[in-house]
Amino acid sequence: MLNSSTGEIPSQGTKLAHADEERHARAASGIAAFIPKSIGRVDDPTDALRRLITSPDLSFLMEAHDGLSAAIARQAGFAGLWASGLSISASLGYRDANEASWTDVVEVVGRMADASGLPILVDGDSGFGNFNNARLLAAKLLQRGAAGVCLEDKGFPKMNSFVGDRHPLADIDEFSGRLKAVKDTTGDDLILVARIEALIAGYGLEEALMRAEAYAAAGADAILIHSRKSVPDEILAFADQWQNKLPVVIVPTKYYKTPVAAYRDAGISTVIWANHAMRAAVAGMRQICGRIIAEESIAGIEPDVATLDEVFRLLGYDELAAAEERYLPKHG
Amino acid sequence: MLNSSTGEIPSQGTKLAHADEERHARAASGIAAFIPKSIGRVDDPTDALRRLITSPDLSFLMEAHDGLSAAIARQAGFAGLWASGLSISASLGYRDANEASWTDVVEVVGRMADASGLPILVDGDSGFGNFNNARLLAAKLLQRGAAGVCLEDKGFPKMNSFVGDRHPLADIDEFSGRLKAVKDTTGDDLILVARIEALIAGYGLEEALMRAEAYAAAGADAILIHSRKSVPDEILAFADQWQNKLPVVIVPTKYYKTPVAAYRDAGISTVIWANHAMRAAVAGMRQICGRIIAEESIAGIEPDVATLDEVFRLLGYDELAAAEERYLPKHG
Amino acid sequence: MLNSSTGEIPSQGTKLAHADEERHARAASGIAAFIPKSIGRVDDPTDALRRLITSPDLSFLMEAHDGLSAAIARQAGFAGLWASGLSISASLGYRDANEASWTDVVEVVGRMADASGLPILVDGDSGFGNFNNARLLAAKLLQRGAAGVCLEDKGFPKMNSFVGDRHPLADIDEFSGRLKAVKDTTGDDLILVARIEALIAGYGLEEALMRAEAYAAAGADAILIHSRKSVPDEILAFADQWQNKLPVVIVPTKYYKTPVAAYRDAGISTVIWANHAMRAAVAGMRQICGRIIAEESIAGIEPDVATLDEVFRLLGYDELAAAEERYLPKHG
Amino acid sequence: MLNSSTGEIPSQGTKLAHADEERHARAASGIAAFIPKSIGRVDDPTDALRRLITSPDLSFLMEAHDGLSAAIARQAGFAGLWASGLSISASLGYRDANEASWTDVVEVVGRMADASGLPILVDGDSGFGNFNNARLLAAKLLQRGAAGVCLEDKGFPKMNSFVGDRHPLADIDEFSGRLKAVKDTTGDDLILVARIEALIAGYGLEEALMRAEAYAAAGADAILIHSRKSVPDEILAFADQWQNKLPVVIVPTKYYKTPVAAYRDAGISTVIWANHAMRAAVAGMRQICGRIIAEESIAGIEPDVATLDEVFRLLGYDELAAAEERYLPKHG
Repeated sequence: MLNSSTGEIPSQGTKLAHADEERHARAASGIAAFIPKSIGRVDDPTDALRRLITSPDLSFLMEAHDGLSAAIARQAGFAGLWASGLSISASLGYRDANEASWTDVVEVVGRMADASGLPILVDGDSGFGNFNNARLLAAKLLQRGAAGVCLEDKGFPKMNSFVGDRHPLADIDEFSGRLKAVKDTTGDDLILVARIEALIAGYGLEEALMRAEAYAAAGADAILIHSRKSVPDEILAFADQWQNKLPVVIVPTKYYKTPVAAYRDAGISTVIWANHAMRAAVAGMRQICGRIIAEESIAGIEPDVATLDEVFRLLGYDELAAAEERYLPKHG
Repeated sequence: MLNSSTGEIPSQGTKLAHADEERHARAASGIAAFIPKSIGRVDDPTDALRRLITSPDLSFLMEAHDGLSAAIARQAGFAGLWASGLSISASLGYRDANEASWTDVVEVVGRMADASGLPILVDGDSGFGNFNNARLLAAKLLQRGAAGVCLEDKGFPKMNSFVGDRHPLADIDEFSGRLKAVKDTTGDDLILVARIEALIAGYGLEEALMRAEAYAAAGADAILIHSRKSVPDEILAFADQWQNKLPVVIVPTKYYKTPVAAYRDAGISTVIWANHAMRAAVAGMRQICGRIIAEESIAGIEPDVATLDEVFRLLGYDELAAAEERYLPKHG
Repeated sequence: MLNSSTGEIPSQGTKLAHADEERHARAASGIAAFIPKSIGRVDDPTDALRRLITSPDLSFLMEAHDGLSAAIARQAGFAGLWASGLSISASLGYRDANEASWTDVVEVVGRMADASGLPILVDGDSGFGNFNNARLLAAKLLQRGAAGVCLEDKGFPKMNSFVGDRHPLADIDEFSGRLKAVKDTTGDDLILVARIEALIAGYGLEEALMRAEAYAAAGADAILIHSRKSVPDEILAFADQWQNKLPVVIVPTKYYKTPVAAYRDAGISTVIWANHAMRAAVAGMRQICGRIIAEESIAGIEPDVATLDEVFRLLGYDELAAAEERYLPKHG
Repeated sequence: MLNSSTGEIPSQGTKLAHADEERHARAASGIAAFIPKSIGRVDDPTDALRRLITSPDLSFLMEAHDGLSAAIARQAGFAGLWASGLSISASLGYRDANEASWTDVVEVVGRMADASGLPILVDGDSGFGNFNNARLLAAKLLQRGAAGVCLEDKGFPKMNSFVGDRHPLADIDEFSGRLKAVKDTTGDDLILVARIEALIAGYGLEEALMRAEAYAAAGADAILIHSRKSVPDEILAFADQWQNKLPVVIVPTKYYKTPVAAYRDAGISTVIWANHAMRAAVAGMRQICGRIIAEESIAGIEPDVATLDEVFRLLGYDELAAAEERYLPKHG
């Protein structure tokens, strides 16, 4: 980390120099040899996400799935986003089974970053293939402004964790290889979260803990422990045993009734509200569509939809008007 | 080849043979020589859109801007969609000023078609350049499943009609060239709607009518007459004078209080609810984001967002489960 | 319209009506519900590819990898193209190991179709995942103008058959499921070629024949039998045993010295020149780059590169000039 | 932040701090708020391109149009690339008349950067619209690894400078606004080259010089002066008068016979070999396609195309093999 007083703590300086060599080597190796421009460390989204995940306070990431939802989450006051695979797929008209290509996902994440400026943790599913696909994905997400990627220990194509029951887990060594490859490629420039599906797949707490150890050794920056139970018991049991060897991230979609105080008490690092912007959009659009059909009019629904002015403000139309003043000649 | 000697009814046969020659010529000429596969005329979206626009009944097109909103509009019962430039731009995090590229728009429209199966009239803005850009856009929209394209008589880049006041109109001859080029390229396979901005730009009824005549002569299938007044007077005056020489399409975003009976009486063909799905999504997401921040919980908002099951139904997750039964071996 | 009463040969009419129902069902099912426009059967690329593959004459497909190479192959006189995964990957700067996403490949194929108008058999690798990914790929290739897709019996991600030795084959039942899913989705609208890697992987002739039988039963339209030996012996042995139960396609990249007469004698259907346009481009560009560096001048190489006029002719610049005459007003 | 106390040379430190503020402001303004990750200054392509353009030595940029051609140019020894609009368009099967969308171009440039690691000056045509389109293009090119963008003083859509004679120039003030908007958006992170078409359009030397002054005042880092004459007289006259107020870049496609010594004597900064890789590829592919057709065999052409091994080396297949050793478990 770049220290504010001296700028650069020595060991860190060495590390950065080393990182540069590493990158140079990577460029020479022909893999993912992208070299985005250094444009300052102000607002570095990866630093921001790291602070959220490593701070002693409980942090929250809000799901978003396109530029618009990302801008809304920022305006509402969220400090970070979750680029949900389920929600992005739904937005594109796809199912959460790796129907959207990895480049489709990268495109969407880039738009979310541009529209919000917020740090984004990206749901990278299982990495879209093997270690090579995973590191390519990570490199491209980094380039488009993502702050972190979360990989889950399943195969390709994945299926949404809440659909069906046949969800074989990835081999631990093979999945660890995916994590290592990502870490070697993107280093500290991208937060790497390892998501454990052992509880959902019914393998129990011991398996989950063993996998957490392995993934930590492979270079993960945090562990996402997932559950589909309606109570957080197995999540809390995991946290109790795990003892924060790495920060713990959770996704309380099914155990939504639990007050967040329970997560604070358990030392959880980060809570992801995983698909609620998309589900709010669905509810809102379904209601309005239904009413327009029924009322054969938009007169009644006008107060219940956002104004055009709100949309214009969200997306900075005023900046464009000001820029026209600055850059367009007055004549003509 | 569809040959009149094989029994094809003559007028149709001749027309098709002519169209085939035309297409063959186009292919040879090197312009937009795509040849999508003939997969039957059942559910042809262009025929469906033509019926909507030419039927004596008042028809409605609902705005959609991605796969999800398109699927929702279909489920709500709409028979056709409006692919709004404003809404698609907003969804991508862009402003409605041709920031999204023409290929970005084509991508989105393809997803809407796939997710809904509905006929889609696409807001093609001013055609993304000159006649050549316009016909390329039209050809690609056709290939991705669009039923029609609407071009407005402005230049490139355009600015949203409700923003600012400086909106110079396109030269009539030049814009007619854009329309002709589209018609010569996509023929009857794609509905071509000419949108007149003369009223909004303050040029008055005579100018609007003169342009409507010119655009009809250039090959338009329908006229979209646009207004930003809060009452429909100038729209109704246009309809009264125009006498349905071509079907008239309107967009009552600003004069939303007028009952649709007025449009029926005036012989309007089609009403576009132009951005209300997007605005419903914004309102829904803004409210839910705000509540999650304020309540620090999703327990309270759960009843107000769509269930995951609703999302799964909308996007056909059951079909995928059934397909797994059919195509995936049981062992393993 | 294709109506059995209008003289369309009955079996064909019935078949098409059936196909329409099938498609209607597919659209309703929510999967790949694209409905490209019917624009006549002249130049239908799938029919053209079917004729090439099923004709008693030996046919040839030339590799292409972008719009430009496709246009050149057409101009040279080839009747069909092979969209090579290796070459497309190379053109994009990727390795032939599923680094390019499936949507990247679809994009490129669409450009090849537009630029050439030729029937294209697409190297679909192993289908980019399971049966669901494979059918999605096939549907989208069909929409962009492809005539056929070739799937190989390996897993995802694949590795180029000529690189390394560890190439596990797919389970026969699971791969057959991929083929069935594609056939059920695209029917006769897209030629389906099953590529057998058993010889390359060292499993021998019996395994290859058994797989060919299974893939034929699953709906393949042709069998591509691949070999990396420098002589065609195992290919010819396969052909001898297989007895053309389905047409046989071969790729003589390694056994390039064999005269094609041997393939004619063996009743081979189609020969793919699998990567020679890309390799010609590499050689050409490498030589010219080297000479420009060495000579510090382009004066000497001018006769050895294509003229701009040749490029303009290839890509129909004259059509654009003529269109400007037609569609652009003279004044201004 | 890169602090001056850590050894960063002060003026540079101040400059960077200023740049950071500027960027922060840009992010806040809602326009192009992308924040790519800082991954070190080693190999910064913009610095490399700046050195090429500002050094007293004559520099050369080689055209490339996809990942493959970029990798070949690097291997041949070129220190920088020209992403030619004509060549990229041709590669995509498009004509050089803004048929390819701006996002199509950004995609291609990203692949060239990834595949070569070289600094790339991008042919940005006229900026794909007004100041707003131009700055959006520049921001996205920067994000994908471009080192510079060149804008020409024409309108949208442009037509290739060597095709036809009707090429109206852009209004000086309006074009200067485009340049300013780009400079305000990308600052020193992206080299901005202003291309003057006044000589080609027949407006003469005075007009060219006046425009050069205006574009320098608007923030251009270099001037590209273009000519379609077969001798470099007007280019040399311009250089003589201009006196290197900004570095001069030239494109001797038509006056290719002139020895580069003439440019050195005239103090030209940079020579662009603007389309010769593409034209070499066309010649190579045309010859090989023709021979395969004529010889009905690839036996004879094998020595004249690149080997697969050469292709594998160019694209780093060995790195992938080594990575498999590192990341893939041995068992299985």
